[in-house]
Amino acid sequence: MRVSISSSLIKRFLNGDHAACARVITLIENNHRTADELISQIYSRTGKAHRIGITGPPGAGKSTLVQKLATLYRSENKKIAIIAVDPTSPFTGGAILGDRIRMSDLFTDSEVFIRSMASRGSVGGLALQTKSVCDVLDAFGKDVIFIETVGVGQVELDVAQLAHTTMVVLVPESGDSIQTMKAGLMEIADIFIINKSDRDGADRLGVSIEAMLDLKTDGLAWRPQVINTSAVQERGVEEVCGAIRYHWNFLNESGAIEDHLKENIQSEIIRFVDQIISEKIWHNDKSEKMMAKFIQEVMKGNITPKVAAKEIVKRANLLT
Amino acid sequence: MRVSISSSLIKRFLNGDHAACARVITLIENNHRTADELISQIYSRTGKAHRIGITGPPGAGKSTLVQKLATLYRSENKKIAIIAVDPTSPFTGGAILGDRIRMSDLFTDSEVFIRSMASRGSVGGLALQTKSVCDVLDAFGKDVIFIETVGVGQVELDVAQLAHTTMVVLVPESGDSIQTMKAGLMEIADIFIINKSDRDGADRLGVSIEAMLDLKTDGLAWRPQVINTSAVQERGVEEVCGAIRYHWNFLNESGAIEDHLKENIQSEIIRFVDQIISEKIWHNDKSEKMMAKFIQEVMKGNITPKVAAKEIVKRANLLT
Repeated sequence: MRVSISSSLIKRFLNGDHAACARVITLIENNHRTADELISQIYSRTGKAHRIGITGPPGAGKSTLVQKLATLYRSENKKIAIIAVDPTSPFTGGAILGDRIRMSDLFTDSEVFIRSMASRGSVGGLALQTKSVCDVLDAFGKDVIFIETVGVGQVELDVAQLAHTTMVVLVPESGDSIQTMKAGLMEIADIFIINKSDRDGADRLGVSIEAMLDLKTDGLAWRPQVINTSAVQERGVEEVCGAIRYHWNFLNESGAIEDHLKENIQSEIIRFVDQIISEKIWHNDKSEKMMAKFIQEVMKGNITPKVAAKEIVKRANLLT
Repeated sequence: MRVSISSSLIKRFLNGDHAACARVITLIENNHRTADELISQIYSRTGKAHRIGITGPPGAGKSTLVQKLATLYRSENKKIAIIAVDPTSPFTGGAILGDRIRMSDLFTDSEVFIRSMASRGSVGGLALQTKSVCDVLDAFGKDVIFIETVGVGQVELDVAQLAHTTMVVLVPESGDSIQTMKAGLMEIADIFIINKSDRDGADRLGVSIEAMLDLKTDGLAWRPQVINTSAVQERGVEEVCGAIRYHWNFLNESGAIEDHLKENIQSEIIRFVDQIISEKIWHNDKSEKMMAKFIQEVMKGNITPKVAAKEIVKRANLLT
């Protein structure tokens, strides 16, 4: 029974049925028992879509920019997906994207797939899930997948790693904190966007980014472009599109895209190993009781947490 | 030989020798082969220090506030430690704290221990390391341990969990982004500080935090205090000190401190389990070759990353 459900779903998926695509994603997000099989069946079709990460501080205008870019790509008849990842918030679940996009024409365009994802557990789990959803959309035939995140945390760095091209969106006011930001955002950016660039400070921010790039990119094959935009006024959006295309060509011509793919597969394997082991150790009848017992022992001062951990690993027969 | 080195070091540590304390911390940070034994020998002495987390956006004045608080505690003859955790930056390694503190009188006060910590690998690793350093300082007899972090990422949430009392330091300008911030920072704060409160917007920010607390803390035993400060002008610092003391009394009288301890031990055990397993799987002669082979298989489309992960777990004989 299980196999036949999957294979009919896969057939519809491969025929370009949007509902089947959404269903596959939901099954994978929910870690349904057919999820592994679904991924296996479509995995060989992945590797064509251009995955574009967009990150930056809250309020920088990322959603608006994505919306304008997506509209531009649609006019070239490209198939688009937009994934908004909201790691810090199990509560507000994806509100960062929803409102704006839902108001636009994109929402009714069947060639634009839109999904918000919130953290349902570990940070590593979210990166895995986002990767799987990208793979499904890639296999489904999307040409461009936007992945939007907020901020500079570990999740953003993980998600940036998924993307072929990462855009960091700043506003003129970001200048004040750019020194503290640089360690996080600066290392992941392939393209810098100074959005709302009609405001004071845009030139100064541009100069300080370029100065930093002078230091950081010396000897590197790719020097990030810095582009001024006003997404609301649709200024600079075509330039951004051009820079994205230019970076994609660079990746393909330099062979960097293969290194990117290898790194990605490696991270994904490592995360899956973590997940499999964590399930074996913590998700069984005895694990809760065992943990409670060890916590008591540590509190009594009989053992340290590390000794408890060693004992737990010893007891977990991971081969069974 | 190994035991005798440790036991002489431990003896000096227990006699209050500052150099021995610094040495123990360095051995633990470097994961020296004696590290586990050192922790075992001092672990039963932990549990007395008040661990205070300070987090908030860059530029909010956290370091200055910590400096003023530490000076105040020193005037009451309390023993102090300050740990600055800088997770996002393997490059700038701890610069967030260094400069300011080094200029102050605290740096020459032997009862004030100051250490910066930067990420040397995984996020979980940093949280474990910070916890261990806290334990050492606690066992050494520090009365108050400040743990300073920047931002709202996973590391900050992990570090906040280590602290008994977490202070979130904001500035009036934070008001604009408070909606997006709330999911992260708002849930961890025991005390809100509006620093640089002579600037415009402080009152408005205070009102919006209180409004949010009205929603969030309904029915909870602890409602976070909101305090206006100007750390540079030393305004409000005594009030912060009072709020910290008040929260500490609340934790002890309500029994919440025991729950806090249990949760902490649990997280620490889980992180150590991860660490032990990760070392067994990835840090051996064959692991690099094995990974390269599986990456090739995935690239050829023969298997998915999850299937590769399952195979790796199967091969890793974790019992040996």
